[in-house]
Amino acid sequence: MIRSVFIAKDGTVRTDLQLADFPGALHDPTGILWVDFEATPPETDEPTLREVFGFHPLAVDDALQETHVPKIDDWDTYLYIVLHAVTFDPTDGGHVDTLELDVFLGRNFMVTHHDQSIAAIEKVWEACLRDERMWKNGVDYIAYRLTDEVVASYMPVVEAIDEAVDRAEDEVFGRPTPDVLEDIFTLKRAVLHLRRIIGPQREVLNRLARDDYAVIDRRARVYFRDVYDHLVRLHDITESIRDLVSGTLDTYLSVINNRMNDIMKTLTIITTLFMPISFVTGFFGMNFFQPVAEALKPWADLPVFAIAMAIFILTPVAMFFWIRKRGWT
Amino acid sequence: MIRSVFIAKDGTVRTDLQLADFPGALHDPTGILWVDFEATPPETDEPTLREVFGFHPLAVDDALQETHVPKIDDWDTYLYIVLHAVTFDPTDGGHVDTLELDVFLGRNFMVTHHDQSIAAIEKVWEACLRDERMWKNGVDYIAYRLTDEVVASYMPVVEAIDEAVDRAEDEVFGRPTPDVLEDIFTLKRAVLHLRRIIGPQREVLNRLARDDYAVIDRRARVYFRDVYDHLVRLHDITESIRDLVSGTLDTYLSVINNRMNDIMKTLTIITTLFMPISFVTGFFGMNFFQPVAEALKPWADLPVFAIAMAIFILTPVAMFFWIRKRGWT
Amino acid sequence: MIRSVFIAKDGTVRTDLQLADFPGALHDPTGILWVDFEATPPETDEPTLREVFGFHPLAVDDALQETHVPKIDDWDTYLYIVLHAVTFDPTDGGHVDTLELDVFLGRNFMVTHHDQSIAAIEKVWEACLRDERMWKNGVDYIAYRLTDEVVASYMPVVEAIDEAVDRAEDEVFGRPTPDVLEDIFTLKRAVLHLRRIIGPQREVLNRLARDDYAVIDRRARVYFRDVYDHLVRLHDITESIRDLVSGTLDTYLSVINNRMNDIMKTLTIITTLFMPISFVTGFFGMNFFQPVAEALKPWADLPVFAIAMAIFILTPVAMFFWIRKRGWT
Amino acid sequence: MIRSVFIAKDGTVRTDLQLADFPGALHDPTGILWVDFEATPPETDEPTLREVFGFHPLAVDDALQETHVPKIDDWDTYLYIVLHAVTFDPTDGGHVDTLELDVFLGRNFMVTHHDQSIAAIEKVWEACLRDERMWKNGVDYIAYRLTDEVVASYMPVVEAIDEAVDRAEDEVFGRPTPDVLEDIFTLKRAVLHLRRIIGPQREVLNRLARDDYAVIDRRARVYFRDVYDHLVRLHDITESIRDLVSGTLDTYLSVINNRMNDIMKTLTIITTLFMPISFVTGFFGMNFFQPVAEALKPWADLPVFAIAMAIFILTPVAMFFWIRKRGWT
Amino acid sequence: MIRSVFIAKDGTVRTDLQLADFPGALHDPTGILWVDFEATPPETDEPTLREVFGFHPLAVDDALQETHVPKIDDWDTYLYIVLHAVTFDPTDGGHVDTLELDVFLGRNFMVTHHDQSIAAIEKVWEACLRDERMWKNGVDYIAYRLTDEVVASYMPVVEAIDEAVDRAEDEVFGRPTPDVLEDIFTLKRAVLHLRRIIGPQREVLNRLARDDYAVIDRRARVYFRDVYDHLVRLHDITESIRDLVSGTLDTYLSVINNRMNDIMKTLTIITTLFMPISFVTGFFGMNFFQPVAEALKPWADLPVFAIAMAIFILTPVAMFFWIRKRGWT
Repeated sequence: MIRSVFIAKDGTVRTDLQLADFPGALHDPTGILWVDFEATPPETDEPTLREVFGFHPLAVDDALQETHVPKIDDWDTYLYIVLHAVTFDPTDGGHVDTLELDVFLGRNFMVTHHDQSIAAIEKVWEACLRDERMWKNGVDYIAYRLTDEVVASYMPVVEAIDEAVDRAEDEVFGRPTPDVLEDIFTLKRAVLHLRRIIGPQREVLNRLARDDYAVIDRRARVYFRDVYDHLVRLHDITESIRDLVSGTLDTYLSVINNRMNDIMKTLTIITTLFMPISFVTGFFGMNFFQPVAEALKPWADLPVFAIAMAIFILTPVAMFFWIRKRGWT
Repeated sequence: MIRSVFIAKDGTVRTDLQLADFPGALHDPTGILWVDFEATPPETDEPTLREVFGFHPLAVDDALQETHVPKIDDWDTYLYIVLHAVTFDPTDGGHVDTLELDVFLGRNFMVTHHDQSIAAIEKVWEACLRDERMWKNGVDYIAYRLTDEVVASYMPVVEAIDEAVDRAEDEVFGRPTPDVLEDIFTLKRAVLHLRRIIGPQREVLNRLARDDYAVIDRRARVYFRDVYDHLVRLHDITESIRDLVSGTLDTYLSVINNRMNDIMKTLTIITTLFMPISFVTGFFGMNFFQPVAEALKPWADLPVFAIAMAIFILTPVAMFFWIRKRGWT
Repeated sequence: MIRSVFIAKDGTVRTDLQLADFPGALHDPTGILWVDFEATPPETDEPTLREVFGFHPLAVDDALQETHVPKIDDWDTYLYIVLHAVTFDPTDGGHVDTLELDVFLGRNFMVTHHDQSIAAIEKVWEACLRDERMWKNGVDYIAYRLTDEVVASYMPVVEAIDEAVDRAEDEVFGRPTPDVLEDIFTLKRAVLHLRRIIGPQREVLNRLARDDYAVIDRRARVYFRDVYDHLVRLHDITESIRDLVSGTLDTYLSVINNRMNDIMKTLTIITTLFMPISFVTGFFGMNFFQPVAEALKPWADLPVFAIAMAIFILTPVAMFFWIRKRGWT
Repeated sequence: MIRSVFIAKDGTVRTDLQLADFPGALHDPTGILWVDFEATPPETDEPTLREVFGFHPLAVDDALQETHVPKIDDWDTYLYIVLHAVTFDPTDGGHVDTLELDVFLGRNFMVTHHDQSIAAIEKVWEACLRDERMWKNGVDYIAYRLTDEVVASYMPVVEAIDEAVDRAEDEVFGRPTPDVLEDIFTLKRAVLHLRRIIGPQREVLNRLARDDYAVIDRRARVYFRDVYDHLVRLHDITESIRDLVSGTLDTYLSVINNRMNDIMKTLTIITTLFMPISFVTGFFGMNFFQPVAEALKPWADLPVFAIAMAIFILTPVAMFFWIRKRGWT
Repeated sequence: MIRSVFIAKDGTVRTDLQLADFPGALHDPTGILWVDFEATPPETDEPTLREVFGFHPLAVDDALQETHVPKIDDWDTYLYIVLHAVTFDPTDGGHVDTLELDVFLGRNFMVTHHDQSIAAIEKVWEACLRDERMWKNGVDYIAYRLTDEVVASYMPVVEAIDEAVDRAEDEVFGRPTPDVLEDIFTLKRAVLHLRRIIGPQREVLNRLARDDYAVIDRRARVYFRDVYDHLVRLHDITESIRDLVSGTLDTYLSVINNRMNDIMKTLTIITTLFMPISFVTGFFGMNFFQPVAEALKPWADLPVFAIAMAIFILTPVAMFFWIRKRGWT
């Protein structure tokens, strides 16, 4: 789907432009043209981007065919910017995905290209149609709003991951199962993926805020610096989460070993208590003793039996104190 | 709550200024105006900050609505600085929290904005009313004192965490329980949180001490350098603590495994001692031996019984020496 | 095998050049000469490279005799570039190998030298013979295409490794065997090897895209920047894979310990259930009881036997509840 | 204790200067004045340092009241340098402590301040009184000698720690006890503490060797570069030790687990050997067999007994071969 | 041993120079003088180096008395360079040692100083006597050859360590013993030691290749850049080895735990199979049953005995299926 909006100097908003109207719109330095390509076939986009807008073949190739990390290329009369919006389905085990958004930004136009619908695009598009503050500050202000919306969408995702790490941690201490391990691993992957996107994206915004680009007004830079500050914070948080996730893995192992310790203690105590006295029952169960036993029918007042009973009672008591002394309980 | 203090050139201190008096105070380059917004509704602050003080909408937005890591923005006629004060409740399991403090610093005024009461603000405010040295050196000296107090509040927190790590370590060696693990994890989170704040805060102070800002007097920079040195030290200590915390986790695992080793040794020794001789009692308990036993009523002088008794005594002795040879005890 | 292609200004393509024709071709600034040395003996190459092309002995040595990490040396009238193509045999347990490719790039010539056949060389060679776009933009464009093909060959390898890590991870959670450990270790080696090549290769492309070399046209730099962007992405992915591989090793240990926990629980439960009641059977198996037993022939209605039976039934039940309380199941 | 030494141009050494003589000594640009404050009360030092020497209040505060990491501040007419000497008591479990040494270095004077006696100070002080080479090169040469002595005192400490790590390692392989773990942890703390001091100290010396300070003669810089080289080496060694200490912790865990493996093998072999044959003795101990046994009084030639005996002998043999096949021994 | 070689402009090679001939040789700017001090007493070297060659006392001290990491100091008329040659005895458990080599390099002379015989020195010395190419390019070319030989000696050492890591890895998977652990630890130490030398040595060569030194001809820099490239590669390989060594330690733990898992499974299966049926034999071994047994002499057709036999057979079968279901085998 290709859609476009042209805002003339006097504030007239036109959304009915055809392909043939673009060159005219581009040549009006006082108007603002925004063309959005969503899920369009590369074959038809390519001639439009190259011939109508005159973009460099390399930039067009990057936009149409390949997956890139966020970057910014300065082609003098326009900037080619790759951003990544984020999608996150909390019901889907914390799987994080990013959607590439290609932006061509000129002095009086912006071309956006993406394969899936991106919420940030919709929001800014709606605002352009309704809110005149959007275009009064020029097309670079619209670009700022777009980057701002894209970046703002990361915060709930990062916070959801942070909470998921918290929950995983609680589970590790409470009920460490292999499922928690898998959750932790999924979170690790998600955080690594986010870092891989947020890092270069931060760099893109840093350059928008600091470098001297022909198409970006000096005064507009403070806006990009604001978005940059958000990305710095996001990056710091993902770093912390990554650190915590590693710690959670270590903790899991410690908790599991702690439990094993507990289990082994029980096993050892039971064995320590019963094995010696079981031997004693075996001893007196040997057939050597049977004749003796027969001779001693009034069994209750026998010293041998009393000795056996004493062993049965005293051995566990002695073991108990020995175990206690070793500090196991 | 909005409160203000105006110190005229002649040292007159006024704290009864109304909103309407601010523009006049701002236009007196020889006086110093400090306005403090604490827990005020953003809706009412926003017009004041924008219209009365003429701050840029982006800076006002940052101050009123959003959470930021420490940063400094130069808006030529004023600086926008985000600092973080720290709160720490030692009774609350070592939970560390930071409070955002927004500062607008001009040549002859300072505006502070925060959502909760901050001890550093109170301290400097009191000093301003009583101590003339505070304002004799200009508003940048007051700003220095504020950053100094904010940073000084970190030291007891960092030291408390360092001691808590020490205690956790001692517990790991003495009595490793899962509770210690949870404490260690809480400490790790606290340290990561502090690092995330102290790092950028250090950068802010570094820039205040080195960069050439219109609103900061050259001679005032040495003061900010002093605060910067404190933050460098704080940062180094948090790095060390982080390293130690990781080491404590590893140690915990080692200690737990060491204990398990001990437990398993006991289990194995007990099993090794009693299983073979229990088999012997079982052997002579088989009913094949009963007739034999009956034929041998004067049981004490029997070689078979003597052999059994010898096995019962010699097996444990042999085992004991074998275990000793393996170096388990 | 030495082969060469000379493309004259008018587009005539000659592939039948002899060694003696090279000097003439080199002196025609409007033509393009590409000489490819594949698996040729160093003894015969050396004089050719030094005398015909006039390359510096050090550069010739580097090309002929030694293994290098990717690098770029500027010899004013030509660049000496070391690249590495990648080979990967998925059937061979994920073994990754890199092939050194030496490139001498002048204003109107390119000399390539490699010991094994490299797919990227073949592809670009074919394109040169057929596609006039290849040489219309000068020899630096051909060099760009070559680096582009070399770098493009990394992506499937890196993706195959990423998938192998995914599979190893799944196996770790499902069926952790020492074989998986060996796979993980092989993957780790592969990733470390790739990083060691991709890192410097990225640096080579960065310099091609940014530095001012006499033999590279200013306009050609954007092409190298594009290749550089690919390498940045490759480098980021290998970093993530390395991080994941380390995590997989940790997870393996956790999963194994988890299983051990499970096994020990079973052992302990069985022991806890049967050891005490086995002692009871032993107790009543002692020969003291035989006479008693004989006196009590109508055995079913005996309190002693009833007590024994009660112990046999109640002990496991009590143990079961005790175990449950400890949260083992 | 305050002591001072004044060396006039003609080499006269005076150590009897009173407070009142300092201003005169300071105004003689050809003499060298060194005042040393050791463990003096801050209340009395403060006015001396501020009024007599005219040091900035901030520098005086730093020197008198606070603990700092090594740093250097340039106050134009003098440098304020914080160094740390090291103390190490090998009998005290490897506890490392550092002593702060504050140095004010002017063109013709040096003021040192420290709370405890520092060996380096004593050494240089003695040399000043006796050796004319010390002051012939100016006060910056004395400062060099002081930093050199301070840094030289680190080497035996670092070497002692390195050896302690070696010993801990040997113990880990020979006899891994929790005591070794505690030693390792103490060493880790010591190394982290040293790194925290050596890192900034290296930076101080780097600046003394490279920056252009008014009070340091150009030719004196090569001396500070020499001290800097020592610190670089010290820093590298502490980095290596830190790496080794972490490795030792990992090794400890591996060795402990290895031993546990050994213990478990023994337990399992014993159980595997005796449990099956104990069952057989139990089987033939059941009372079903008693009548049979009675009927078969000439017990030695019974096939049932022969079978039982065969089981007793063959089961362990079979088990032995099975265990061997699994590679446990 | 002090030996010297003087090569005059016309190629005359003299090796019979006495101490008294050095000043004359040094003053001949067209000749080349190389003096080599091997294992000479510092007391006699010191005056020679200071008075004859005029080296700075600090540089002489560094060369004679102290151990340094590789470094380069520019003393204007000469360079003082510290290099490290490597020795490695494969039969000695992979112990790596480095030998310090001090080089003073002037415009027309080179002085080398070392305490042990270094193979690289011998090689270059021999070449100087025989091969005129060595000195036709000036003394800086000889210095290049020396650094080249020193660096070349690292490659076999690093490769031997890499192979040793490979072997250790194979042993970890095949037969993990504590000996392997000790080997791994020795390798770790060796790699850390090499890194500590190679890192600064790389920096020395980088500076020789890039900085503008009076004694190094501009054209000679490309030679040092070549040595620098070797060191870059060496550094990358040692980094990889270090990474692999750490991974091997982790793997060791995993393999050990895997084996323990196996052992525990066996123990648990044996216990699970035999403990319940041993209880049953004990149950029917109680003396309550003896009278019953007697009453039932024709024992084979008894339902009670049949039930017992069924338990003996069915319990292991049930256990077997239960174990199988849990996925232990």
